[in-house]
Amino acid sequence: MSNLRFTEQALSEWMRGNGQDSDIVISTRVRVARNLQHLPFPLLATNQQSAEVLERLTGVLKDQEELKELGSFHTIILDDMEELDKKVLVEKHLISPALANESRNGAVILTEDESVSVMINEEDHLRIQCLYPGFQVREAWDRATALDDLFEDQVDYAFDDKSGYLTSCPTNVGTGLRASVMMHLPALVMTQQINRILSAVSQVGLTVRGMYGEGSEAVGNLFQISNQITLGQTESEIIDNLHSVALQIIEHEKNARERLLSESKLRITDRVMRSYGILSYAAVMESKEAAQRLSDVRLGVDLGLLQGPPSSVMNELNVMTQPGFLQKRFGDLMNPGERDVHRAKLIREILGNRQQ
Amino acid sequence: MSNLRFTEQALSEWMRGNGQDSDIVISTRVRVARNLQHLPFPLLATNQQSAEVLERLTGVLKDQEELKELGSFHTIILDDMEELDKKVLVEKHLISPALANESRNGAVILTEDESVSVMINEEDHLRIQCLYPGFQVREAWDRATALDDLFEDQVDYAFDDKSGYLTSCPTNVGTGLRASVMMHLPALVMTQQINRILSAVSQVGLTVRGMYGEGSEAVGNLFQISNQITLGQTESEIIDNLHSVALQIIEHEKNARERLLSESKLRITDRVMRSYGILSYAAVMESKEAAQRLSDVRLGVDLGLLQGPPSSVMNELNVMTQPGFLQKRFGDLMNPGERDVHRAKLIREILGNRQQ
Repeated sequence: MSNLRFTEQALSEWMRGNGQDSDIVISTRVRVARNLQHLPFPLLATNQQSAEVLERLTGVLKDQEELKELGSFHTIILDDMEELDKKVLVEKHLISPALANESRNGAVILTEDESVSVMINEEDHLRIQCLYPGFQVREAWDRATALDDLFEDQVDYAFDDKSGYLTSCPTNVGTGLRASVMMHLPALVMTQQINRILSAVSQVGLTVRGMYGEGSEAVGNLFQISNQITLGQTESEIIDNLHSVALQIIEHEKNARERLLSESKLRITDRVMRSYGILSYAAVMESKEAAQRLSDVRLGVDLGLLQGPPSSVMNELNVMTQPGFLQKRFGDLMNPGERDVHRAKLIREILGNRQQ
Repeated sequence: MSNLRFTEQALSEWMRGNGQDSDIVISTRVRVARNLQHLPFPLLATNQQSAEVLERLTGVLKDQEELKELGSFHTIILDDMEELDKKVLVEKHLISPALANESRNGAVILTEDESVSVMINEEDHLRIQCLYPGFQVREAWDRATALDDLFEDQVDYAFDDKSGYLTSCPTNVGTGLRASVMMHLPALVMTQQINRILSAVSQVGLTVRGMYGEGSEAVGNLFQISNQITLGQTESEIIDNLHSVALQIIEHEKNARERLLSESKLRITDRVMRSYGILSYAAVMESKEAAQRLSDVRLGVDLGLLQGPPSSVMNELNVMTQPGFLQKRFGDLMNPGERDVHRAKLIREILGNRQQ
């Protein structure tokens, strides 16, 4: 299958780059939700109507001179994909679980480097998603809005002068904009400041989630921070607010890291090195433990306590140790126990341990 | 100081050899307690009397043709030793804590390979101790009795026709013989059979202790099994009893190891490899944790799960990670926290990790 290339590598090409503050902000994501005028939202559409949406939207990016800078686009029809490939794309955050599991006439359009992902017939007709390494909220927004303009030139969006862009779920009405940063905040967790900070974040219109899925607990000290409100603020206000709050969190995390280094260097070193030792040798590794220990090692490398793998390898491991990718790599359906063994094996291999 | 050589190496030369069943029996020890006629036991002796004991007993081994096979003997006067050197000899089991801390006119006579240790003016005037690697109860007894005969040829032992050899403590009266094996029994501990077995052992006149000191808890799954009774049994009966009970325990441990391998191989492998990883990388390591993790690694090597260090290195680490040896090696008095850091460092170095 032609689309398999996107599920063979755990790390998207765009993630190999480095952005600002990439020791704390793993990645930035901006997505806009749009719908076509005069056609029901995907959930209410007939098969014929959603097929029409698919055809009209996939047509837009064909032969676009302006898009050449992004490389070529690849359209993947969800119905043509195997379940495991869908799962891997979800784990790479290139498509949503909803598109993978519930869409009719769903599709995703990806650039070569996977930094742009356009979902069709997910909850809305069109979701444009742009991904950047590190802390690049404004850059991601600029690209997303450029793509949005391109679509808007060729199709009529459902738009209301009072409400703004109409969306299937009321939480997206208005700008249809969701901007988020994925932050690694181990020092704020260790110094027990995280709850105070997350609570402050929620009071300025932002939401915090774990790395995988809505409402899921944050594992591996990875927190996704995004705007909660899409209505009553302009796009710039939303982007500026996320940008400035994220900057403050970065500062707090940096201070907490310095405090750890000056007050508890030995304890932190021990923790980091033990996690590295366990990851290098364990024969069984559950997903949650892997995430926590990878977080320790990432922190150790960032603090210069450990000559460890570069952050791109750590990012890769975060995706590789997910259930879908493990199955993709080691073949067939595995039970959780078998996955824990393969997860441990994969981590050992990547950290370069040849003991076993 | 001339005696420092015995405290520079953690592992006695005799321990580099391999005895029978040395994957389970680390070492065998036989000691006989003797006292001189017409002189009070050390606790009750005047300084002059204990000085006389010292002189008479150290004289016995001088110019003994028969002893050449054991190599030369080195006499070390306790009062000439530094505290730290005494501590190291205790940790190597070459002298007792009582000789190190409480003796007057105390001395120890050691062979080159440290397989024979003769203590003078400990609790008794004379304690002859022979050490063998692996399971060699009869061999150790043969050598101890040969040395005993040698002393008896030249001095008059305190002996009663009814009670046998008289000793300072009533628990040693009769044969004055204490034979022991140091056994590594991780599989019996993991399969929770150890308590049943130790309780059975105590019903046949044997006693179980931890590796370091009387009454101390067994750490690192190392159990010292010795005869409790010295009176009312002949020397042969004592040796035969210990030999046959130890043989049974060896069988039980072997069966438990096979059961672990067939029923829980993955779990055991994971445990062994994690301990190896932690020992290879940790920055802080308490003595009890070190003992437990070294036990895991030793088991892993014995079971072929890990291409780890040979058992002589494991034996060395058991001694090296003790407080006295650590101070001897890294210099001066350290607090427990500093010891934990140096212990971790030493283990990392010996396991060959160059990460830190």
